[in-house]
Amino acid sequence: MNEMLIIKIGGQVIDDGVTLERFLKELSKVESPCILVHGGGKLATRMSERLGIEAKLIDGRRITDAATLEVVTMVYGGLVNRQLVASLQALGKPAMGLTGADGDLIRSKKREHATIDYGFVGDVTQVNTSGFEAILRQGQIPVIAPLSHDGQGQILNTNADTMAQSIAVAMSKLYSTTLVFGFEKAGVLRDLSDEGSVILQINKAEYNDLKTTGVVHTGMIPKLDNAFEAISQGVQRVIIGKADELSDLLNGKSGTTLKHE
Amino acid sequence: MNEMLIIKIGGQVIDDGVTLERFLKELSKVESPCILVHGGGKLATRMSERLGIEAKLIDGRRITDAATLEVVTMVYGGLVNRQLVASLQALGKPAMGLTGADGDLIRSKKREHATIDYGFVGDVTQVNTSGFEAILRQGQIPVIAPLSHDGQGQILNTNADTMAQSIAVAMSKLYSTTLVFGFEKAGVLRDLSDEGSVILQINKAEYNDLKTTGVVHTGMIPKLDNAFEAISQGVQRVIIGKADELSDLLNGKSGTTLKHE
Repeated sequence: MNEMLIIKIGGQVIDDGVTLERFLKELSKVESPCILVHGGGKLATRMSERLGIEAKLIDGRRITDAATLEVVTMVYGGLVNRQLVASLQALGKPAMGLTGADGDLIRSKKREHATIDYGFVGDVTQVNTSGFEAILRQGQIPVIAPLSHDGQGQILNTNADTMAQSIAVAMSKLYSTTLVFGFEKAGVLRDLSDEGSVILQINKAEYNDLKTTGVVHTGMIPKLDNAFEAISQGVQRVIIGKADELSDLLNGKSGTTLKHE
Repeated sequence: MNEMLIIKIGGQVIDDGVTLERFLKELSKVESPCILVHGGGKLATRMSERLGIEAKLIDGRRITDAATLEVVTMVYGGLVNRQLVASLQALGKPAMGLTGADGDLIRSKKREHATIDYGFVGDVTQVNTSGFEAILRQGQIPVIAPLSHDGQGQILNTNADTMAQSIAVAMSKLYSTTLVFGFEKAGVLRDLSDEGSVILQINKAEYNDLKTTGVVHTGMIPKLDNAFEAISQGVQRVIIGKADELSDLLNGKSGTTLKHE
């Protein structure tokens, strides 16, 4: 199987100009077909504040009322997404900025929950792998904003980690797929106070041990749970680490690589 | 030569939900390859006001400082563009929302002017016809926001009429190209007080006569000058009229069709 790379970068990478520039330079050197998924949390929160819209979070998930959906469509789907593309073009890397609505790439269903009204939040139901392949065949990096659609004209706010994971799982049927969660941390640390104590490789049993002994930072747990879920659903390799060390992440010199067993 | 349709819709069509819905339904029935270019003026002005950014216009052109560029990138490149795409998908019409940066479709040069600093405004220098063709071959309508890039990472605000015209001129070398300027007016009127007095066909000489006798509304003059310029640069047909009467515009039953001679 040919190789395919799905990279997710979080809001902290977007917010930090120096880190972002380093990441984009690293990305521009990647030769395998590649899909970039981005967040953009803080910028959306800041824009909401400027517009007098109160940001609400439950369990780290943004509650998306109509006004907030407008903001995230503007900030994620416009500002962040288009600027990432313009920057990649300047580095000679062809890119195309898209949401799940564009090319019908990612469909979702409005989340229904017994007690919490998440508003215009969508859970991924379908990834259009042939749509992605058509764009990749043109030599373009699809740059994906964390927005999907329900096929009935409704744009839905969708968690960027989940989008990346869904794309990776779908693509893993066709390609040997590596999913990279790039953020500001070095990976899973054996000692939280020591950035040098990165665990380079980890399997599910070792992860469970670390959870039991409380070594894993609580903020990392949902990320790692999702990452192991991706592995169990067929993604060949998941790597967690600093976005701007992309080439080292890919050759195993930095970050934490999750193993099948 | 195969047929190709380039349609530009203005801010008034975007702002009026009923007209927009009618236009999109008409568009979804079009079978030729099609590129849609949209404006979105009033929404950007309104967003600028909400953010306390003063909108400046010189000769109808928006002066684009850094804050305004942020707004138009959000509103044109995000909100308007993505919603148009989601609506087209709901009508079963595959679409992809793009700026000139995406796929390096439209490059521009920051406008230099002896006395006026237009800010981040770009004049089109290059249309990537093979990029458009690759998207059209996938059966997608490229939905183009009035933003381009300079290839050095800078997004530039670009007049939607000019974008549509530049795309049409470039495409007219490869396709028999029809350029439609869809807006809220019925076309060129013989009697301004009578919407029924539309001139169905007009050539350059007849247009010059109407200008001389003051029959043409002053607001229409730049639009018609540009349209005749497009004809002289090789566009096979230009039609001006109501966006939501698209099929009638195309079969000559409404709007004004500009003739070569």
